[in-house]
Amino acid sequence: MAEKLTPRSEDFSAWYNEVVLKAELADYAPVRGCMVIRPYGYALWENIKAGLDRRFQETGHVNAYFPLFIPYSFIEKEAEHVEGFSPQLAVVTIGGGQQLEEPLVVRPTSETVIGHMYAKWIRSYRDLPLLINQWANVVRWEMRTRLFLRTTEFLWQEGHTAHATKEEAEEETLRMLHIYEDFAVNDAAIPVFTGRKTESEKFAGAVHSYSIEAIMGDGRALQAGTSHFLGQNFARAFNIQYLDANNELQYCWTTSWGVSTRMVGAVVMVHGDDQGLILPPKLAPYQVVLVPIYHNDEERGRVLEAAHQVVAALEGAVRAKLDDREEYTPGWKFNDWEMRGVPLRVEVGPRDVEAGQVVLARRDVPGRAGKRAVPLAGVREQVVEMLSTIQKDLLERARKFRDEHTWEPKTYEEFAEAVQQGFARAPWCGDAACEAAISQETKATSRCIPFDQPEDKGTCIRCGREAREVVLFARAY
Amino acid sequence: MAEKLTPRSEDFSAWYNEVVLKAELADYAPVRGCMVIRPYGYALWENIKAGLDRRFQETGHVNAYFPLFIPYSFIEKEAEHVEGFSPQLAVVTIGGGQQLEEPLVVRPTSETVIGHMYAKWIRSYRDLPLLINQWANVVRWEMRTRLFLRTTEFLWQEGHTAHATKEEAEEETLRMLHIYEDFAVNDAAIPVFTGRKTESEKFAGAVHSYSIEAIMGDGRALQAGTSHFLGQNFARAFNIQYLDANNELQYCWTTSWGVSTRMVGAVVMVHGDDQGLILPPKLAPYQVVLVPIYHNDEERGRVLEAAHQVVAALEGAVRAKLDDREEYTPGWKFNDWEMRGVPLRVEVGPRDVEAGQVVLARRDVPGRAGKRAVPLAGVREQVVEMLSTIQKDLLERARKFRDEHTWEPKTYEEFAEAVQQGFARAPWCGDAACEAAISQETKATSRCIPFDQPEDKGTCIRCGREAREVVLFARAY
Repeated sequence: MAEKLTPRSEDFSAWYNEVVLKAELADYAPVRGCMVIRPYGYALWENIKAGLDRRFQETGHVNAYFPLFIPYSFIEKEAEHVEGFSPQLAVVTIGGGQQLEEPLVVRPTSETVIGHMYAKWIRSYRDLPLLINQWANVVRWEMRTRLFLRTTEFLWQEGHTAHATKEEAEEETLRMLHIYEDFAVNDAAIPVFTGRKTESEKFAGAVHSYSIEAIMGDGRALQAGTSHFLGQNFARAFNIQYLDANNELQYCWTTSWGVSTRMVGAVVMVHGDDQGLILPPKLAPYQVVLVPIYHNDEERGRVLEAAHQVVAALEGAVRAKLDDREEYTPGWKFNDWEMRGVPLRVEVGPRDVEAGQVVLARRDVPGRAGKRAVPLAGVREQVVEMLSTIQKDLLERARKFRDEHTWEPKTYEEFAEAVQQGFARAPWCGDAACEAAISQETKATSRCIPFDQPEDKGTCIRCGREAREVVLFARAY
Repeated sequence: MAEKLTPRSEDFSAWYNEVVLKAELADYAPVRGCMVIRPYGYALWENIKAGLDRRFQETGHVNAYFPLFIPYSFIEKEAEHVEGFSPQLAVVTIGGGQQLEEPLVVRPTSETVIGHMYAKWIRSYRDLPLLINQWANVVRWEMRTRLFLRTTEFLWQEGHTAHATKEEAEEETLRMLHIYEDFAVNDAAIPVFTGRKTESEKFAGAVHSYSIEAIMGDGRALQAGTSHFLGQNFARAFNIQYLDANNELQYCWTTSWGVSTRMVGAVVMVHGDDQGLILPPKLAPYQVVLVPIYHNDEERGRVLEAAHQVVAALEGAVRAKLDDREEYTPGWKFNDWEMRGVPLRVEVGPRDVEAGQVVLARRDVPGRAGKRAVPLAGVREQVVEMLSTIQKDLLERARKFRDEHTWEPKTYEEFAEAVQQGFARAPWCGDAACEAAISQETKATSRCIPFDQPEDKGTCIRCGREAREVVLFARAY
């Protein structure tokens, strides 16, 4: 913990890996491309889960669990789906010592098996809408992996809904996109662009895909959540039908949407600095860490007594941890908790006890500027208020960074330069060939087509033909 | 939902499957031996999770996540472990379209991969104890499967801890056993016997295994949770060592313990009756269901207004659901919610509204005896108290049943008869051959060796030799 991190500005990628490992968010697993989510990282993920799950429940969704294994034939039923996932599958061929007659796919996503069950469960319009979410692990055989951002196995939630009408399904698709946006902005303090994916970037099997796109500290984009309008593609492939009020058989309209452990990576890359993580208070496993400071046994008694008073005062209002380990110095603890990104540190020393105060030190504001002495009496209110300020300030800082790294280039040269540092909002002709050329020439991909489009879209940034829409491009993780 | 269940007394096994399917706890998955946990069953599982997780946290455990895939070589490192699991493994041989060099096992349990990580993480006595739990899916290729009780994939939690001393690890093993007992008794209303497993029944790789054993409605036993003292077996196999205070390298002592979705099956089989599920209030997804009763629009308005008042009164205190579906009759709803085991029904009719009251109907007490009118004014307190009574009464009823189905046979004939209907507490010589013969002759297996042993253990129930311990035998799921 003592060694310094590679500075973020020097080598962002090395910095990222070091932070994730040293803050003990995750570790490499003994299987290629897989990771272990360590307790501190898992607590962060559990807070992300809680924030999302609450929003799902509030909008009428329920959780369920579908099987890990999918018959290979299921994946083949939807043409685009099989094409999209075939190169990424992990396949079980042996079970109980026997070669299996039909190999089983370890789910890369559950549209197919859930489609199969929905066909069985849904009988009439009374069964609709069916709004189910699943928290699960999925596996995609990835060539180049990176902790949290791209791993062979990852954790996620996948929502799968079935509706009587196209309109309802489209509405649901956007509702969930906006829930993701709301979570990202208000819980993770990550500003996002929202919009529709281009045809070449959409989910295999979807009619339309939508995403939330965030900018990381190095200017690269990260897709942090997706929501798909699947039309009747999966309903037709899996025969998901219902009897309408006129007793006529109709195909359902379905959606799916997901957020994964990638979100942990986003939190690291958006907020962290050269000292390590900076966690938004709403997601931080510990929002406050108390570090007692003393030089002898007499001081120790008084200081720890005051520290316990603070812990008691904070109970029920904030997630606080008292670090009373004897084997480490206060300075070592400061560094350790800074690395782990605890938003607020409470220092309690003998002079503080005498003065009836404690010192609050903000993780996001280094040095003296982030420190403030507050009276012991009002510590609960002060801490709660300070955490709320930190949450707000982190979002503002990230928003400022995002806005400063979003350009509207006038020429392809400007465009090519802009996407090396952030987002470029640029007109596009709509031709997939042009999109592919942009990607090859600049390494930037289309991230999403924002909802609010100008009336006059101008001409394609690359080919000069009439533009069909204005698109956000960026180099992406 | 309208068709009746097979009576429980007539065919317990058919009754069980029907209840699980009709109450929509689970369904068969399209892959052999796998199941889908439907929203109602998953909500029950989430309440089980919450009850266990709270107890784990209170005793200093933290959650983490380890990978699904385990290199085949890991399983082979611990001799008994590989022998125990080899016939049950699902093996991935193809990844990303390529034959894998080393096949990957889909985890049947995570001792090995967690052992590998602990060896990396643990350096000195300061890192101990390491107390980690994981909520995850695991896979064991089962020949004969049954919803919740034995499925190829199931959900569970597996705790894995590492300690500096044998004593600490043994203490932890028993602490977790007692946490399981506490959960079973106080949350699931399931009385359990606790004790040590015999050598032939213990976990592959453990020094000692302990279990909680419950009795189902048909007199058969169900192992509902296990806790293992692993000694230094896995520490030696995976080189989990620490530097002690004298700077000497020592092997750790480890434990593991688990409870799975089997617990859902236990809840069904202990409490259910011919009308369907009966859920203990602490675990029920809905503790109360409100059924409005009206015959015309005028009544409808008044009744629904009163029903909403009740919902408002219960908010924050109980999980209540208002069933205001128009397309079903009250009678249909009564049956439906009885099938689903909601502990308490609140009926609101026009005469109740006039009288300023509602009718509470207990799921566990059929007919008039379980009904009581209570004034609308005090409904919150009455409902809370009634739920607490139901919780207590369910436990008492289950305990009575368990005690009435636990015998101390004097002869092997009595023994053979007793185990067809419940538990037999009987002296055993300690010889595995005798244990195997008992199993072959009576289909009963040793369930556990209770902690409190009589001074004079008598002679083996089967062979007449001097008994080493008194053992609980039963036919088990």
